Amino acid sequence: MKISSLQENLKNGLQITGHLSGKNINLPILNNVMIEARDGEIKLIATDLEIGIVCQIRGKIEEEGSFTVDSKIISDYISLLPNKKVDIEKKDSELLIKSENYKTSVKGMSAEDYPVIPQVERKGCYKVKISEFKKALSQVIFAVSNSETRIELTGVLFNLSNKELTLASTDSYRLAEKKIKIKTEGEIPENRSIIIPAKTLQEVTKILAIARNENFDENGGELSFYVSDNQILIIIGNTELVSRLIEGFYPDYGQIIPQKNETTIIINRAELIRAIKAASIFSKSGSNDINLDFPLGKNQAIISSTSSQSGDNMTELDATVNGVDNGIVVNYRYLLDGVNAIDSENIRIEITNSNTPCVIRGEDDKDYLYIVMPIKQ
Amino acid sequence: MKISSLQENLKNGLQITGHLSGKNINLPILNNVMIEARDGEIKLIATDLEIGIVCQIRGKIEEEGSFTVDSKIISDYISLLPNKKVDIEKKDSELLIKSENYKTSVKGMSAEDYPVIPQVERKGCYKVKISEFKKALSQVIFAVSNSETRIELTGVLFNLSNKELTLASTDSYRLAEKKIKIKTEGEIPENRSIIIPAKTLQEVTKILAIARNENFDENGGELSFYVSDNQILIIIGNTELVSRLIEGFYPDYGQIIPQKNETTIIINRAELIRAIKAASIFSKSGSNDINLDFPLGKNQAIISSTSSQSGDNMTELDATVNGVDNGIVVNYRYLLDGVNAIDSENIRIEITNSNTPCVIRGEDDKDYLYIVMPIKQ
Repeated sequence: MKISSLQENLKNGLQITGHLSGKNINLPILNNVMIEARDGEIKLIATDLEIGIVCQIRGKIEEEGSFTVDSKIISDYISLLPNKKVDIEKKDSELLIKSENYKTSVKGMSAEDYPVIPQVERKGCYKVKISEFKKALSQVIFAVSNSETRIELTGVLFNLSNKELTLASTDSYRLAEKKIKIKTEGEIPENRSIIIPAKTLQEVTKILAIARNENFDENGGELSFYVSDNQILIIIGNTELVSRLIEGFYPDYGQIIPQKNETTIIINRAELIRAIKAASIFSKSGSNDINLDFPLGKNQAIISSTSSQSGDNMTELDATVNGVDNGIVVNYRYLLDGVNAIDSENIRIEITNSNTPCVIRGEDDKDYLYIVMPIKQ
Repeated sequence: MKISSLQENLKNGLQITGHLSGKNINLPILNNVMIEARDGEIKLIATDLEIGIVCQIRGKIEEEGSFTVDSKIISDYISLLPNKKVDIEKKDSELLIKSENYKTSVKGMSAEDYPVIPQVERKGCYKVKISEFKKALSQVIFAVSNSETRIELTGVLFNLSNKELTLASTDSYRLAEKKIKIKTEGEIPENRSIIIPAKTLQEVTKILAIARNENFDENGGELSFYVSDNQILIIIGNTELVSRLIEGFYPDYGQIIPQKNETTIIINRAELIRAIKAASIFSKSGSNDINLDFPLGKNQAIISSTSSQSGDNMTELDATVNGVDNGIVVNYRYLLDGVNAIDSENIRIEITNSNTPCVIRGEDDKDYLYIVMPIKQ
């Protein structure tokens, strides 16, 4: 193998593939990135056996071939080089890298021993706007469960029709749901539900962040994906990501969304965040409880907390309150996650009673919904 | 005690005093900050028994008194409040804090149990320009020893005459020395050497950084200090810091500074940093060795490294080399620390031979000197 490429292209590609390679002691070759030059294309390839990333970069092939080297070493080294032409050549069991007055040889391993990235059949494609998809991911991914006891909750549910994608996540203490528009091409089933591992979507988020820095066309840009029985293929510009899907049935979360409420509150988001943070300082350690109260006849929200050790705190915020006298106790971290994920100026809170989940949305936002379970007293 | 002050003043004062209060399990009151309102002055006071900080803030005293509360809780809470008037009142064993619609009570402890900050007699004062002192600290503090086996090396030596302050630090692997001008007032001895704990100077650096944010007059501003037998008092605007000094004799480091050299090299600093970092990737793990070579007759510096595990690296840099064919092996971390601390465009390296410390300076800088011990092969 003998290729050349601009430092910038190599650096960007290695950043995109670099996250996946960690410290795998059992299978050391997984710490490596594979460089492949074939059929006129230069590709950087990485996998952790669950996710595979293939990033095509611009460059010139003098001699086809492939090789693998430690991902961290080559990334660290390439990112130090000036943005000039870099020559890369496999020689015996080493990769020679030259650029102007810099010269290095990195020991590597044969590409034949590198795991094969699975292929996903490309029929029936979904397309989403990158800007909308990015936003949607950021609004649901934090509510995914970290516990392996219910494996289906460690992913994000994608409910796909041919016009709309509904993303949902829950760790059973809170739930987030977001709807965005999709376009489809080719043959796809009318409705389909898949569960995508949170780790896969975190990789997608990282790739989108790097892509943005590289003047990726974020607003006009589209991301496409193909779904097979147990795999998804996501295409972002010149980068392809393949991941397994989570098998299992996602719980029917619709039944825990309250269909009516007794009290609705409209409140300024920035003020609410400040008051939640103030109350968090005095919330009982371990429980993270804070109180939300909406007393009858006052257009006020009272956010408060009491700690027997450190003291107590109360903030009275102006709010538009409709309905009956009401209150609820919630974990401030879960509440804050939801309020932070909404970017409307005002937040709408819907409460039934102190034993029923409360619903949080942007004031005029029909597409995003966040639910926090109450802490029963 | 009953006082009021602007949120901004309280926040700034609590930031300055806040670093000192940690998680002291043996003496819980050390986690607290003391608020004192006396003789028309409001002071925030913190100590860890080795260092004491007293920060005077603007405000109104309605009733004199003093009290202590958990430093982290009050800092976190005050920093959340809007920048408005804050009312603070001691009531029984609690501090009531009110600002607009925010209301809190924080449990505290009596000021009588708080350690007394030692007084340093104010005769014979030294004054330095804040901008110069800050820079000087940043150029020497990283070379202080972390090991308690030679306690005198855990501080920075201040050699004081009535015109010049020489700061020096060494961990016996490298040495940094910086000279700055000082002014004096009152009676001071002709020459005096003190050793200031690195931790004290780190606190000073933090205070100066916060002060800068608060539009502290950095360029025209002066910092003064008074020295007693075993204490130093440093005055920065409205903040006073008292610290113990390290007892013991600092080694006579002058004798390890080479008085002549065989080879001098002038080299671009940014290029040198890049080449050191590139070589560091392939330096033997554990030893951090890299090679610097200046072959006869070539105006070049060759920075290289070889790792039996990962590969090897070589960078050839243009340089102005005078003297004999020479080379040295050094720890790249120590070399990089020194080169980073210098801000000239070009670096001057002076080498005697591969067994003698090498000297690094800014090309035309007479005031700063950095020495790296060689790794003998």
